[in-house]
Amino acid sequence: MNESDDLRLRGRRRFLASAATVAVVAATAPVAATAHARASSASSETGSDSEPFFGTHQAGVATTPQTNVYFAAFDLIAEKRDDVIALLRAWTAASARLTQGQTADLLTNDPATPELDSYETTGLATDRLTLTFGFGPGMFTKDGKDRYGLAKHRPDALADLPRFNGDQLVPERTGGDLCIQACADNPQVAFHAVRQLTRIAYGAANIRWAQSGFMAAQKDKSTPRNLMGFKDGSMNVPIRAEAAMNQYIWAGDEGGWMQHGTYMVARPIRIALEHWDRMKLSFQQQVMGREKHSGAPLGQKHENDSLALDANDANGNPIIPENAHVRLGAPENNDGAQILRRSYSYDNGLSYIAERWPPWHQGMEFDAGLLFISYQRDPRTGFVKIFDKMSKFDMMNQFVTHVGGGVFACPPGAKEGGFIGQPLFDLA
Amino acid sequence: MNESDDLRLRGRRRFLASAATVAVVAATAPVAATAHARASSASSETGSDSEPFFGTHQAGVATTPQTNVYFAAFDLIAEKRDDVIALLRAWTAASARLTQGQTADLLTNDPATPELDSYETTGLATDRLTLTFGFGPGMFTKDGKDRYGLAKHRPDALADLPRFNGDQLVPERTGGDLCIQACADNPQVAFHAVRQLTRIAYGAANIRWAQSGFMAAQKDKSTPRNLMGFKDGSMNVPIRAEAAMNQYIWAGDEGGWMQHGTYMVARPIRIALEHWDRMKLSFQQQVMGREKHSGAPLGQKHENDSLALDANDANGNPIIPENAHVRLGAPENNDGAQILRRSYSYDNGLSYIAERWPPWHQGMEFDAGLLFISYQRDPRTGFVKIFDKMSKFDMMNQFVTHVGGGVFACPPGAKEGGFIGQPLFDLA
Repeated sequence: MNESDDLRLRGRRRFLASAATVAVVAATAPVAATAHARASSASSETGSDSEPFFGTHQAGVATTPQTNVYFAAFDLIAEKRDDVIALLRAWTAASARLTQGQTADLLTNDPATPELDSYETTGLATDRLTLTFGFGPGMFTKDGKDRYGLAKHRPDALADLPRFNGDQLVPERTGGDLCIQACADNPQVAFHAVRQLTRIAYGAANIRWAQSGFMAAQKDKSTPRNLMGFKDGSMNVPIRAEAAMNQYIWAGDEGGWMQHGTYMVARPIRIALEHWDRMKLSFQQQVMGREKHSGAPLGQKHENDSLALDANDANGNPIIPENAHVRLGAPENNDGAQILRRSYSYDNGLSYIAERWPPWHQGMEFDAGLLFISYQRDPRTGFVKIFDKMSKFDMMNQFVTHVGGGVFACPPGAKEGGFIGQPLFDLA
Repeated sequence: MNESDDLRLRGRRRFLASAATVAVVAATAPVAATAHARASSASSETGSDSEPFFGTHQAGVATTPQTNVYFAAFDLIAEKRDDVIALLRAWTAASARLTQGQTADLLTNDPATPELDSYETTGLATDRLTLTFGFGPGMFTKDGKDRYGLAKHRPDALADLPRFNGDQLVPERTGGDLCIQACADNPQVAFHAVRQLTRIAYGAANIRWAQSGFMAAQKDKSTPRNLMGFKDGSMNVPIRAEAAMNQYIWAGDEGGWMQHGTYMVARPIRIALEHWDRMKLSFQQQVMGREKHSGAPLGQKHENDSLALDANDANGNPIIPENAHVRLGAPENNDGAQILRRSYSYDNGLSYIAERWPPWHQGMEFDAGLLFISYQRDPRTGFVKIFDKMSKFDMMNQFVTHVGGGVFACPPGAKEGGFIGQPLFDLA
């Protein structure tokens, strides 16, 4: 055993010891006991700004979108199936606490004990924190190896994404055996949660890529605008409509252990803001197929009016262009496919860019765009179906580039006393 | 003239034409006219969520800190003094509009006209947007050249920062001839403002580096916590205390054209969160010299209790260690120096790190920390005085690295009808 292996093993042992502690703590101190809740978190005690963690479905999907996300993907380095289970148990226990405004672990009054929380949320509201977990293909098979004896249970719906036209995926922002979508109405609350969960995973999983994002709530609660200035999320699957959610988003009987779960496709999409900002309003609207200010489909009056896909102008040309974004994404053109979009704008400062078109600008440009997050019952008939055509024909492709992402099976919600993904691990 | 020069020149001509348009618009359409204000921005019309732009001092210094910042530094590429003036006039006109909840420029109803705003703040509140401008050393002399005839007016206080012990400044996050600190209670509002101002500057200034940040307001309005989990900003210069602000922050008679202005030192400081999180609470408190939860100085009870620098424990050792952060920064140890700190936490996802100490971890770690922003009457007797000692002895240096930054002269506030920095350009 070389030194590096030794360190890794010690890391794993530390993790297992710590996971055991968490498990004991979880067993002896029910989450409902709020003696150790954040001192001033009165509203979380009344539940007014906290979302339940346990339930039929995971929270963070049919949850009214919060203003902030911190998304993180992880590589599993655990060697054994039991280590993965220990991680998921520890994550579940910590998540149950964090989402109720508590610290990741029980506080200690002994100043000599290593910290069990980093405490930057002390004194903050819970801010509707949700933690949504997903399993990537690497949970089932990695480099051809069935590391945890789970390969036979890999859902068909968790198919590797094809390479789409125009994909520019960088490995440092792509993939992951596990993911966490942390959403809250406060960036510090979302980041805090992922930071604690990352620490809890030491020795079992390494954080691989991460992206934070924001969504500015409209004052009138209408559909928010993304950095292109357009409303983003019009004609979304309505999260309160159980029938539609069951039809399009939640896995049904066909899902086996995934029943009541859902599949996430996440993609950071860089937007060439400087290029977009040089376009005329009329052209931007043709690209989108919608009015910028009202959000109405071209030729219509209101955001929620249906797309008049067959309407032509006086010259006989379609009012919504053939290659407009909304036309290509419309259910009518995708065998009825619908996905739940839950995207956030992101801003990573600047990076050096050499533009490929006039004015051939080279220099620092905004490294910003959209962290596209979608949920669906089956990506093959959801995102893949819709985006295959879009990736080839969407006029918007002149302005956007998919730079990373992943596909994840998000298991059903955990039961109290159980853990995220337990139905999978309960299988032989 | 080669093609690249030609493009640059055309860029500059475009800028001058657009700046002229803005100037005319500003002259004929007083900012108070709100006919084109954001449609639903009722609260900005009553002024309840907007900060005045014009005044004796620039806003964003003595303003109650907003929850978000977007900081950007620019390189001037303008060839002539008049081009710099045109830029500052255009920025002033746009800032006066943006801070009152209006679009960067007047809206047009002609869909064929290129967009004058990107509109992603349509329907949002003004969120107390402030825009604070600073002039870096390069405004006065760049590569030994007095580009704009301003070299003789460079304030002594705008001295280049020395190289401090431990500095790891990367050029892509350092310097700038101009800077903008955009603060608002909404990240989209702050970013939107810088995006419009960056576009207005095309041909006159290129954006060089940028960093966004957040500050989570405590529910009880007490001092917020940064990512180390400690309160950040205790014992700050009180922004409502005119005498203290005049003594420590605002340039006085000695300032000449800078009178009523202030000097900003900004530094993105990476925090090794994974390393910090492995430290015991007791050690973290020794490093800081304060209690983590209450914020009280060690040996005291309350956050605002004075530092008992002479108090010893039973063994005769100082209760606040000799190399604790608060001791080294205390006015008592820096000839009475005080600066106004207005810092934000930042999160840039992950980057690859090779740690220099146990457990010698190499891999992806959080690229996060503090965008330290400070204001002072003279950096030589402010930040430089305080940080020189800190950079050598502060125990916190094990966990933090200064990775960029700059020093900027922030002129007094603009007068209505005038522009930011006008007192400098009015000099011969």
